[in-house]
Amino acid sequence: MKAFNLSRRDFIKTTSLVAAGLPFMGALPAYAQTPGKKLGFALAGLGNLSTHQLAPALQKTQFCRLTGIVTGHPQKAAAWKTQYNIPDKNIYNYDNMEQMADNPDIDVVYVVTPNSLHAEHTIKAARAGKHVLSEKPMEVSVEKCQQMIDECKKAGKQLAIGYRLHFEPNNLECARLVREKVLGRTKIIDAAFGFPMGDPTQWRLKKDLAGGGCLMDVGIYSLQATRYLTGEEPAEVSGFTTVTDPVKFSQVEESITWQAKFPSGIIARCSASYNASGLNNFKVSTDRGWFTLDPAFSYHGIQGVRSDGQQINFTDIDQFAAEMDDFAQCILANRPTRVPGEEGLRDVKIMMAIYESARTGKAVSLA
Amino acid sequence: MKAFNLSRRDFIKTTSLVAAGLPFMGALPAYAQTPGKKLGFALAGLGNLSTHQLAPALQKTQFCRLTGIVTGHPQKAAAWKTQYNIPDKNIYNYDNMEQMADNPDIDVVYVVTPNSLHAEHTIKAARAGKHVLSEKPMEVSVEKCQQMIDECKKAGKQLAIGYRLHFEPNNLECARLVREKVLGRTKIIDAAFGFPMGDPTQWRLKKDLAGGGCLMDVGIYSLQATRYLTGEEPAEVSGFTTVTDPVKFSQVEESITWQAKFPSGIIARCSASYNASGLNNFKVSTDRGWFTLDPAFSYHGIQGVRSDGQQINFTDIDQFAAEMDDFAQCILANRPTRVPGEEGLRDVKIMMAIYESARTGKAVSLA
Repeated sequence: MKAFNLSRRDFIKTTSLVAAGLPFMGALPAYAQTPGKKLGFALAGLGNLSTHQLAPALQKTQFCRLTGIVTGHPQKAAAWKTQYNIPDKNIYNYDNMEQMADNPDIDVVYVVTPNSLHAEHTIKAARAGKHVLSEKPMEVSVEKCQQMIDECKKAGKQLAIGYRLHFEPNNLECARLVREKVLGRTKIIDAAFGFPMGDPTQWRLKKDLAGGGCLMDVGIYSLQATRYLTGEEPAEVSGFTTVTDPVKFSQVEESITWQAKFPSGIIARCSASYNASGLNNFKVSTDRGWFTLDPAFSYHGIQGVRSDGQQINFTDIDQFAAEMDDFAQCILANRPTRVPGEEGLRDVKIMMAIYESARTGKAVSLA
Repeated sequence: MKAFNLSRRDFIKTTSLVAAGLPFMGALPAYAQTPGKKLGFALAGLGNLSTHQLAPALQKTQFCRLTGIVTGHPQKAAAWKTQYNIPDKNIYNYDNMEQMADNPDIDVVYVVTPNSLHAEHTIKAARAGKHVLSEKPMEVSVEKCQQMIDECKKAGKQLAIGYRLHFEPNNLECARLVREKVLGRTKIIDAAFGFPMGDPTQWRLKKDLAGGGCLMDVGIYSLQATRYLTGEEPAEVSGFTTVTDPVKFSQVEESITWQAKFPSGIIARCSASYNASGLNNFKVSTDRGWFTLDPAFSYHGIQGVRSDGQQINFTDIDQFAAEMDDFAQCILANRPTRVPGEEGLRDVKIMMAIYESARTGKAVSLA
């Protein structure tokens, strides 16, 4: 987990610079600091995340600019064209996005479509010669994740997954606390994310588009936390799924619990839900203390406390801006991203194992 | 779970009376209110719990008095004799405790010996014509729990298990919040209890005396919480155990996580540890809110918060005094205890299922 192995000094420098809205000057190789060079991003999929988070975040970035869109809705295209001054030639739909190959305005395609379309849209973008940032979960099967990796590699383009918390100062600090054993040696991790799902017609409740339920969408945050906190890969997992509202949750799980055992002996217990409140936190218990983030996974307001009474309360940043700026810098500097396709594939593999365990009643080894 | 079905009015009355050090006048049938009648308690096993909790608690009870002791240590007998003015004739050891049959000073034996001796000492007490209060966990196997129940029944004596939290106002309030759906319908319960174990030579780390590790000793609190909060019995459990210090934990598990599925669809994730801090809490997540106790399982200071901003902060009571006074009243009034042997057996059965799952890698059905 390279992202979480910055030194304390680098970490503070980097995050305070991000917080101040400045580029990562200290961390960047000189050749990447081309003045004024910004990569053109096209957002593929203009739903809530693109509308309310990504487009506004792009306005705050140092190395990115919103230059294009991909959408199947002409009325959305018209609205975005006006709001963000996007020329007609940079507006695509899912049937013609291969034509981006001839468009130098677009360097990166950010795939924000439903989970089971990520591979298709990533592959189209890569074949058009674009770098790709795909939202999480990467895809709905290990095979499709591998295709995404293979196609981007073949095209010589970078592939990153939208794991915004790899750029979030409080989560980074918690990974440091574990790694440097500041409050002792980690023994148990408890992590949860969920919320009561509103609109029952949305694609997240449809198996063919989402690939699964709350685990794929929000449980992945807890899974990620257990992995970036420990710096280890789970050796064994087991899970229980449940549905109490079989009308709303006719295709995917409503809630899930799972446990994971790590090679060092750390164990984790996690839950996720589309029908429960108060789940947005993790707690790390060590042999002589503990620390927690609550909320842990929100867009803003992440904070926590430590057993020694100290607060964990680094400055709030725009996580999406940080994520996109980092990817742009990786591309400009031709260095690997800390959140590559391989990282997304690992999560999908583990989630499939958790589902298998819930289905079969047997713990699944990942060794 | 009768204990958790008091009405709100009765509950407040009862707990405020307990808090004020008054007897349960409102809740007691008249014939039990014999003025001055106190049952004689003998403590069997004079370790930390007896010394620092039970003997002091007995001084605060309304219906009990410390009249006898059972110990294998003559020097402890001498010290207790002096401190509590216990006559020689009321001092027993484990080889002669059957002779209590002739001693009218002793009505109840409180068994506070290591887990795997509970059956032996309970059966001796019952055969001597005494009621029995046994510490938790009830015993180390379902068979031995059943023997305890059978022998007490045969002797016509009551058997209770030392589940002090069934008398703790904040835990009772949380059970009410679930039952009355005050903050919504419960979906997920998260519960944890543990601490870093000190003395590596103590009986709790020896398999033959303890029957297991942290699950048996502290995990049982989380298990109890999931049961008294939901009022349901788990239908299925699965568990992972772990040891990171194989010297200290050569015989029993160091830490454990488990998950449980209940008939209504509620799922719980729990952990326990003898080597981790910060584990003493539960959180109930509902479809529109949540509430938590933290600490949840301590002798004192239990408190919590609700998603509507209200505090859960009923007056601190001596839980052991309340537990013993209630048992004395049950005996005086010839009515059943809310924490009978059958309740202890249920927990042992579930804990054995969790161990089986950890051993086999398969979820265990309890239906």
